[in-house]
Amino acid sequence: MPGRERIACIGGGVIGGGWVARFLLHGHDVALFDPAPDAERKIGEVLENARRSLPGLYDVPLSPEGRLTFAGTLAEAVSGAAFIQESVPERLDLKRQVYRDIEAHADAEAVIGSSTSGFKPSDLQDGMVHPQRLLVTHPFNPVYLLPLVEVVPGAATTSDVVEQTERLLDSVGMKPLVVRREIDAHIADRLLEAVWRESLWLVNDGIATTREIDDAIRYGFGLRWAQMGLFETYRVAGGEAGMAHFITQFGPALQWPWTRLTDVPELTDELVGRIADQSDAQSGAYSIRELERIRDDNLVGILAALKATDWGAGELLNRQQARLAGQGGAAPEFDRPLRLLERPVPPSWVDYNGHMTEHRYLQVFGDTADALLALIGAGGEYVAGGHSYYTAETHIVYRAEIKGGDRIYATCQVLKCDEKRLHIFHRIHDGESDALLASGEQILLHVDAASGKTCPAAPDVKETLFRLAAAQADLPRPEDAGRHVGKRG
Amino acid sequence: MPGRERIACIGGGVIGGGWVARFLLHGHDVALFDPAPDAERKIGEVLENARRSLPGLYDVPLSPEGRLTFAGTLAEAVSGAAFIQESVPERLDLKRQVYRDIEAHADAEAVIGSSTSGFKPSDLQDGMVHPQRLLVTHPFNPVYLLPLVEVVPGAATTSDVVEQTERLLDSVGMKPLVVRREIDAHIADRLLEAVWRESLWLVNDGIATTREIDDAIRYGFGLRWAQMGLFETYRVAGGEAGMAHFITQFGPALQWPWTRLTDVPELTDELVGRIADQSDAQSGAYSIRELERIRDDNLVGILAALKATDWGAGELLNRQQARLAGQGGAAPEFDRPLRLLERPVPPSWVDYNGHMTEHRYLQVFGDTADALLALIGAGGEYVAGGHSYYTAETHIVYRAEIKGGDRIYATCQVLKCDEKRLHIFHRIHDGESDALLASGEQILLHVDAASGKTCPAAPDVKETLFRLAAAQADLPRPEDAGRHVGKRG
Repeated sequence: MPGRERIACIGGGVIGGGWVARFLLHGHDVALFDPAPDAERKIGEVLENARRSLPGLYDVPLSPEGRLTFAGTLAEAVSGAAFIQESVPERLDLKRQVYRDIEAHADAEAVIGSSTSGFKPSDLQDGMVHPQRLLVTHPFNPVYLLPLVEVVPGAATTSDVVEQTERLLDSVGMKPLVVRREIDAHIADRLLEAVWRESLWLVNDGIATTREIDDAIRYGFGLRWAQMGLFETYRVAGGEAGMAHFITQFGPALQWPWTRLTDVPELTDELVGRIADQSDAQSGAYSIRELERIRDDNLVGILAALKATDWGAGELLNRQQARLAGQGGAAPEFDRPLRLLERPVPPSWVDYNGHMTEHRYLQVFGDTADALLALIGAGGEYVAGGHSYYTAETHIVYRAEIKGGDRIYATCQVLKCDEKRLHIFHRIHDGESDALLASGEQILLHVDAASGKTCPAAPDVKETLFRLAAAQADLPRPEDAGRHVGKRG
Repeated sequence: MPGRERIACIGGGVIGGGWVARFLLHGHDVALFDPAPDAERKIGEVLENARRSLPGLYDVPLSPEGRLTFAGTLAEAVSGAAFIQESVPERLDLKRQVYRDIEAHADAEAVIGSSTSGFKPSDLQDGMVHPQRLLVTHPFNPVYLLPLVEVVPGAATTSDVVEQTERLLDSVGMKPLVVRREIDAHIADRLLEAVWRESLWLVNDGIATTREIDDAIRYGFGLRWAQMGLFETYRVAGGEAGMAHFITQFGPALQWPWTRLTDVPELTDELVGRIADQSDAQSGAYSIRELERIRDDNLVGILAALKATDWGAGELLNRQQARLAGQGGAAPEFDRPLRLLERPVPPSWVDYNGHMTEHRYLQVFGDTADALLALIGAGGEYVAGGHSYYTAETHIVYRAEIKGGDRIYATCQVLKCDEKRLHIFHRIHDGESDALLASGEQILLHVDAASGKTCPAAPDVKETLFRLAAAQADLPRPEDAGRHVGKRG
């Protein structure tokens, strides 16, 4: 992962603000230029949403946040920046003026990415002094959660610039999709445009309301598209006969007049008003801020589900998480409780009271135990080899409530062990105050997975474990160790 | 929910088979007619997929499965059926012939639903003796998991028939979307058609491969559409300015040539071959069967995420789950351990060894404790009133592994209680053999949520609880109660 970069963002609307949040929360420094008087307030709102939801994507803490500065001028923002993200309104003359200003003040090597959803990069490059450094980097709202960025090089863009941009986007957990040939609206917005036009007709012709159209998507194919997209979905639907069969079978329907292909509905005041009214009836019970949070919580949940199956966007998140976990650095000292886990509490772990659900305490202890096993050489490869530690018994003492978004860490202490048994003690602490929030005591048994019977651990696992136990032998015995349920005090 | 119905399915392909699975697994009896020689094998495969994934949608068991019969003739299948679902190939003459056969042998009141994705119901009704009983009921693959059904009445369809159909679809956990005016391809397939056509152009023109198009969807707007659809997503993106502002701002782009509106790409052998090759490169590492299971696991996970936020399709599932839970019937007898929970183990609860993860044991105990609290009058309303029981301590003994798909049940026994403390003992049993799989001992404290301090329970809660404790006072004390971790034996 590239180190901390200095990034300039020009324009701080919904998209520009989303870029600011994504870069900052992944550890880059950002200088923002936006001449709007309420730019600072708007960025604050986007950042609040991002800080609330983005940490929930990972089971490990994010890198420390970068530093945000509000630049008084464009010149100040781009000066010294390695990458400049332009997100100004969708007007060609305005964008070209911004590039002229950037080129007058930025380093000659600075790369310029444009958030344009419609323009071709070659059209944007027209008139630039160093057009080779500009390309389209088109993200999707909310930028701090959705991984996709369409990366579109123009005629003048060098492959170095494309690769450098891909590395940067990759470092902030995104999915750069390099588009082979530039066309208006790239790829995704052409698909969206097709659906949008057809949907306007459906409303215009009184076939369906906005809610009915949304329901037709989110109770049906929208659930498929979150994971597989169009072609892979149809490949599955087509079954063993294969993709060619599917196309030739369903192809003829394309010739039937199923969509209002050729026409564009006129956006009369009546039609615009009808859509706005239907949308109010559908979603008006929620403020935009509430809808944003509902959307973000749903996205975090959907992405967590895809992480569990290691599929699509979930596979991407798992890779990013492995990199974040790898930042941990030095191996822990053996002569104290091992600090093996640190994480934010995601919204999905929280009950109706806003508190972390009780079984998530045990999930934290289980993850801590897994980290201990990896440390003594009994991790994934060892398990694949047919041996494993199984938990036989667990005792949990809850000392304080833990809230969603809290940062917690967990330690592990070895109380006793022999070649088959491992007796350990976990503690969960508050990441800010270090207060003890809960403890967990466990017995794990070393098992031959095939027979399901206990057996001695492998020599090198045993050796590391015994060394660890010896180093911890003089630690004070935890107060809560050996408790039975209901013991007073 | 209507009782067990007799349903006939005509046609057992991907869609027809999905209907069979959905009806059966929600407790209806199904008679299938499909003249294909391998119909029985194909239905078996769909049922296997459905039995593997569908129970994972709910935290309570499904109704007992209905009975499936393979009818030798259409006449045998439809005789005595209350509802007949037609899923034969998409040819108007064939469908009309099937309706003639149905009308010759079915009850005059039997309703006929057609799975057609393209035809208008009035065209299907043409020539029928009782056209008022036919309507379109168009589902989405996989029918056993995706909730959406487009319900389209034709000119002759009576409102009684529409309502009766809605009730049936609702009873099997679906989302009937009644379409106001019949048009070719209804609603969803018009949107899909628009995207499909544009995507074929993108491949044809060498702009993108099938994988790139799928990635543009599933890393981007597909994640939004699983929860909000099109209009609500744009409402959020438009922000405080509102929907009318959003449309007028983005409307003009519709006039730009962003999509290949007017043309249909010719499906030459070259293009069909190119798509098939690209699709092989993208997805060929998996068999169709594997892709089906990947898709189903992802859908169950995504839908579980939406259940947690009680949004869209998740809200629908929660309602269905409440109904399934309500089927439990009689209140449990107090003089024995209370059987409070019964459920299948969903795929997402399982670790890399195929075993239920340790923290899910505690989730089961937590759910069992919640059921106990609801039983003594300390459920949701009581919590909303500001009082609640918090878990202070938990002890778990794992006796046996639990596998994904296993059916388990849990019981709860009160060991001791006073006006502030509740000492309980849970057991998880195998749903088939009744073997004891794990036990959990807990102390819960009655708390004033505002102050966070313990306080006496409300009089009626206390009264029920004390009555329960008295009834269970003579039960044998569980062997594992009062254990401390590491106690031998």
